[in-house]
This record gives sequence, C-alpha cells and structure tokens, in this order.
Amino acid sequence: MNFSSKLLQDAVDEISRLPGIGKNTAMRLALNLIKENDENVMKLITAIKSLKNGILFCEECCNLSDKPVCGICTNDKRDSSTICIVEDIRDVMAIENTGQFNGLYHVLGGKISPIDGIGPNQLTIDKLISRVKNNNINEIIFALSATMEGDTTNYYIFKKINNYPIKFSTISRGVSVGDNLEYTDEITLGRSIVKRIPFDQN
Amino acid sequence: MNFSSKLLQDAVDEISRLPGIGKNTAMRLALNLIKENDENVMKLITAIKSLKNGILFCEECCNLSDKPVCGICTNDKRDSSTICIVEDIRDVMAIENTGQFNGLYHVLGGKISPIDGIGPNQLTIDKLISRVKNNNINEIIFALSATMEGDTTNYYIFKKINNYPIKFSTISRGVSVGDNLEYTDEITLGRSIVKRIPFDQN
Repeated sequence: MNFSSKLLQDAVDEISRLPGIGKNTAMRLALNLIKENDENVMKLITAIKSLKNGILFCEECCNLSDKPVCGICTNDKRDSSTICIVEDIRDVMAIENTGQFNGLYHVLGGKISPIDGIGPNQLTIDKLISRVKNNNINEIIFALSATMEGDTTNYYIFKKINNYPIKFSTISRGVSVGDNLEYTDEITLGRSIVKRIPFDQN
Repeated sequence: MNFSSKLLQDAVDEISRLPGIGKNTAMRLALNLIKENDENVMKLITAIKSLKNGILFCEECCNLSDKPVCGICTNDKRDSSTICIVEDIRDVMAIENTGQFNGLYHVLGGKISPIDGIGPNQLTIDKLISRVKNNNINEIIFALSATMEGDTTNYYIFKKINNYPIKFSTISRGVSVGDNLEYTDEITLGRSIVKRIPFDQN
C-alpha cells in the first residue's frame, strides 16, 4: 500500500499484526480510531495496558484472574473435590454459562500438540499433579476438545495420575441437542450409536 | 459472558467497540495480547497514540497527513491544475497504486447522504470551492463511488463550481477488466452499451 502518512502506516502495520486482522481491516480500524473521540481511544489504550500489566494466572487453577487466587477457587460454596480440566479461559466461561457445574477447574493452557511444538511441559500438568497430590480430589472431568490432540492430552494426564483413588470422567460426546441426524458427521453419529446410553438415563 | 477477570472484561468491552469486531473476536484479540510479549503490545499502543495525537488533515487537499501540507500537494512534479475528488484516503491510496494519475486530490471525507445525516456542510466542499477560486484549475475529475450518494455529491459540487472555466470529467464506468459479461450486473452492462466508446480509443 502507498501511504501518505507514516503515522497511519505504523498504526496499520501494528494493528495488522493481531491474529486474523489483515491490512484492509487494520486500515478500517485505524481510520475509525482517527474519527473516534479522544476519550474513547484513551479508554481502549488504558484497558489494554491494564490488562497487560495487571492480569495474573490463578495460583490454584491457572485460570486468568485479577487476584493471585481466582474467584472460583476461593468460592467455598463450590465443590473442591471435583476438578474439570479445560484448555483455556474461554472453556471455563462456556461451562460457567451453562450453570451446570459447581466444581473447580484446571486450565491447561492448551493441548499436547507436537505439530505446534507444544509438549506436556508447556502445559500446567505438573501443577495439576501437585493439586491432586495435596488435595482431596474425588473426580476429575476431562473437558478438552474432541480432537486427536485433546484425546492425547487426556490420556497423558490419565496415565500420570491414575494411581490415585480418583474417578475419571469425560464430557459426553454425541449428537448436539437440536441437530438433525442427516447433518451430523459420520464419526459422531457412529460413536453415538456404539456408545448409546439407557433411555431412562437420558 | 461470564468473565472471571474484570481486567479481561474491560479489555474485551473496549476492543469490541471497534467497528466490525464482535465479542468473540475481541476475546480472541485480548487473549492474544496477554500472550504477546510486552514490547510488541507497547509498540501497538504507541502507534495508536501517535496516530491519534499526531495525524493532521492536509490544509490543501484535506487528506490525512503527518505534516500541515501533505506530500502529494507539496510535490512540484505533480500537475497542480488537475484535481481528483475522492471520498477518503483509501481512494487516494487506490488511485496512487495504479500509478496512472499525476494530479492532486481533494478528499471530501464522505458523500452527501441524508439517510446517514451527512449533508454538504459535513464535507470539505467549501474548501474545494476556495481551492478552485484561488488556484488555476483546468480539470476536475470526479472519482466517487458509483452509487446514488456518489452521483448526488458529484452533481452538488458540479452545480457549485460550473461557472468556472474548468473541464469536468468522471472516471469511466463499465465492465471491469477481466470480467465475464454473463456475470456483470445488468445496470453496468446496459450503461456500458449505451455509453460505448470508439474502438480505436479503447
């Protein structure tokens, strides 16, 4: 692109480094920031700065938090003997939004994926093992993505802690509620027939 | 959404105020900013701040510029008797990228569009009239979008300055180079037949 302004060019270059933002979107955003009133732009900058400087990882569950231990881990109304293992904060938010889970979480920070260079040491698995060691845990729920990497990670963790007297479970997989069978992929449908459940437990 | 972090929530709220960025994209961007190294985030913040504080509108053509008069208007190799009227800096960049125009620009800042509450006074039409008055202009080229609003704006400007001895022209409209006729919309195709041009001038 042929910019008449170095300032604009710098801003577009920096904005377009964000994931999923190309040069044209960055240009649109930069032009919008120019038009926007100063106060709003300062609010955006302050929010990004505060986020970057202030955000912590919960010492217990490794979730993003404003305090050393997050609100879920410090909530004594929650069942601290059940831990649900998830990939990142978005999964915590998704499960919290269902209102169906009252235990604690453990945020791994990703999945084991050799192709992306992510091994067990990049994840918070050691932290999970020490939680299992030092606390009275009854159940561990695996809630990772239903992919090869998710399954690998589940299995790795299971192997590391299956000598403790803990019940291991995984979120159920099958046809989504509201889905038509004809549009469900073959693997999911096949699996949901093989792993069928008693009708009265549905 | 059910955030465990106020800082994250604030950042997502502010980022999602940008046009075309929803809550999910804002969340993705915020999580990426947390992972990103401090230096890159500071570069982004600095670029936005400098853009916001330093950007000017060229006193001549109203284009965005780092200096009071932009690089195009101060370039004495350009033909200052030809002015191409465009909507915004993106159009200037698009025309500059063609390398086919050596005159000056006038950036209107939009089109007359009563439905969006944009009247002639919100645009830089007065500035254009004073440029025409005080300079020796031979030709004005209209290069606004080929829409109802673009045509209205062209006509309004034409009415305001057609008492000066200036040649008025508009960028040609027709079938795009490389387009198949069968996929060209009817209005464009109809117009390109009615306004056909001599074959040897093509």
